[in-house]
Amino acid sequence: MAFVGIDVGGTRIKLGLVKQKKMVSSSVFEVKNNHSLEANLPLIIEEIKALSFAFDASEPIEGIGMALPCLIDHKKNKILSDYVKYPDAKNIDLEAWFYQFYKVPFIIENDARAALVGEIEGIDQGTKDAVLVTFGTGIGTAVLSNGTMLRGFNQFAGNLGGHQTIDVFGDKCNCGDIGCAESLASGWALHSILESEKSYEMSSLSKVKNPQIQDLFKAAAEGDTLAKSIYNRYLKAWSYTLKNLVYAYDPEYLILGGGVMTDGENLREYFQTFIDKANWLSHFTVKVVLAQNPDWAGVIGAAILAQEKEIAH
Amino acid sequence: MAFVGIDVGGTRIKLGLVKQKKMVSSSVFEVKNNHSLEANLPLIIEEIKALSFAFDASEPIEGIGMALPCLIDHKKNKILSDYVKYPDAKNIDLEAWFYQFYKVPFIIENDARAALVGEIEGIDQGTKDAVLVTFGTGIGTAVLSNGTMLRGFNQFAGNLGGHQTIDVFGDKCNCGDIGCAESLASGWALHSILESEKSYEMSSLSKVKNPQIQDLFKAAAEGDTLAKSIYNRYLKAWSYTLKNLVYAYDPEYLILGGGVMTDGENLREYFQTFIDKANWLSHFTVKVVLAQNPDWAGVIGAAILAQEKEIAH
Repeated sequence: MAFVGIDVGGTRIKLGLVKQKKMVSSSVFEVKNNHSLEANLPLIIEEIKALSFAFDASEPIEGIGMALPCLIDHKKNKILSDYVKYPDAKNIDLEAWFYQFYKVPFIIENDARAALVGEIEGIDQGTKDAVLVTFGTGIGTAVLSNGTMLRGFNQFAGNLGGHQTIDVFGDKCNCGDIGCAESLASGWALHSILESEKSYEMSSLSKVKNPQIQDLFKAAAEGDTLAKSIYNRYLKAWSYTLKNLVYAYDPEYLILGGGVMTDGENLREYFQTFIDKANWLSHFTVKVVLAQNPDWAGVIGAAILAQEKEIAH
Repeated sequence: MAFVGIDVGGTRIKLGLVKQKKMVSSSVFEVKNNHSLEANLPLIIEEIKALSFAFDASEPIEGIGMALPCLIDHKKNKILSDYVKYPDAKNIDLEAWFYQFYKVPFIIENDARAALVGEIEGIDQGTKDAVLVTFGTGIGTAVLSNGTMLRGFNQFAGNLGGHQTIDVFGDKCNCGDIGCAESLASGWALHSILESEKSYEMSSLSKVKNPQIQDLFKAAAEGDTLAKSIYNRYLKAWSYTLKNLVYAYDPEYLILGGGVMTDGENLREYFQTFIDKANWLSHFTVKVVLAQNPDWAGVIGAAILAQEKEIAH
């Protein structure tokens, strides 16, 4: 019983063969045909064949799960939002496409939800209530509540935590709403935040081409005044974003992932202390933990979701 | 099969006898022994007896549900937060107390959750995803997701929407956190918001003793400059509070209740338009509706929850 997990990023596509919820072989390829998911699908099939052959050619594949950074209707296997990197993704019948090669259950799922399923395997398989937050280019969120993925009426429950408004008197987010968490503190927002500052030219960050959050952290650690000020604002915005998510969902585990949290023990501790001090939480327990397997949790989770679909068949 | 619902407010206690999810008789009494729930419990028993006698003395009571404006552990029938109006509430074993008189299932529940259960009866019994928001002295919230009440690990999921931070650079809320929705726009916050304004003395509201939100609405409608400005800020804060709740839970119905929403068709329409325009929601459906039975939904819901417990027994 082997299941395939596929995590479709904008620049890299990761694949894994998963048996009994553990990954037994994996591969990554750089996307060669940019801006077309369809053009990359044959490459995915080739990778699945190679993975399968490398592991055990006689082991049949029982299901395929695919994770993408979009709003997804998991039941209908349908992409609900645009995927900037692959404008064609929304219009491809992925289930039918994969069915040509593998007549097995196929699911697509939002990447944060898939990663949450994968992470829970490594953190506490018995938990019924966990929230995953990934800090990186954007802020991704997913929620497991009472043992099931929170999906909601239109299938986007738990996914839009990065676009909660935390600064109602602030500026427009690039989504069109006001003061979203992502617009205050994310990778994509950093450049315009820097440029809006008068002292930008005096900052060491003005010499960095296309500055990333890691550059902000580094410059702040080195004592750059502007970097320190923006870093503190990022910490504040992230802290209240997390507080709001805990107030909304009351998880047992708050799992921190994304590029920002690599080696993030200091940040984890900071957020744990902040959450512990939040007024309503002083009598309650929320365990703030780092993602255990940020690179592969999406692949593993997608495969596990495919397995669950197979069982439900 | 009659069930008793009790809605314990700070100044009034409401009771109802509920058969087949409909209220068949009801009563309200003004709290006589302020600051002690225990002192009011014998009055509640007297009211139940009177209700039962008035309806049909031979009809046995099969369960009792009690709603209170506190964080509540529904499974353990335990009050988790302090109830300002009844400081003794937290330490009373209510289940044991009622068991002396009625040896039937007894549940306590947060009042917004009970009201949500009661409201759904009048709006759409088939819905699996609904959020209730009550605007009044505070902002109460409760969430039904995938057909079950959202409770979370510590039992407070869905309850703390009024204390989500929507103004991360704002002032301290009286809860100790920063920029909570309630601190920006609620009944309890109004007086200090008014007093912090330089033009307060020039406003007609300075002549109102202990001004309520209804006074704010009235003064704004009459053209008072300060009142109009604060009214607009209230609308803005409530709009983004609702947006965040929809982003978090993705309900089919967003139910608006509380004192503010009495005759609130204009407000409902305003919020429906706002939600429809929120960026991520343009392809989705969220029905913004007024609470149908704001006075009695808590009583009916508490009785229904008692019935569900009776069935589970």
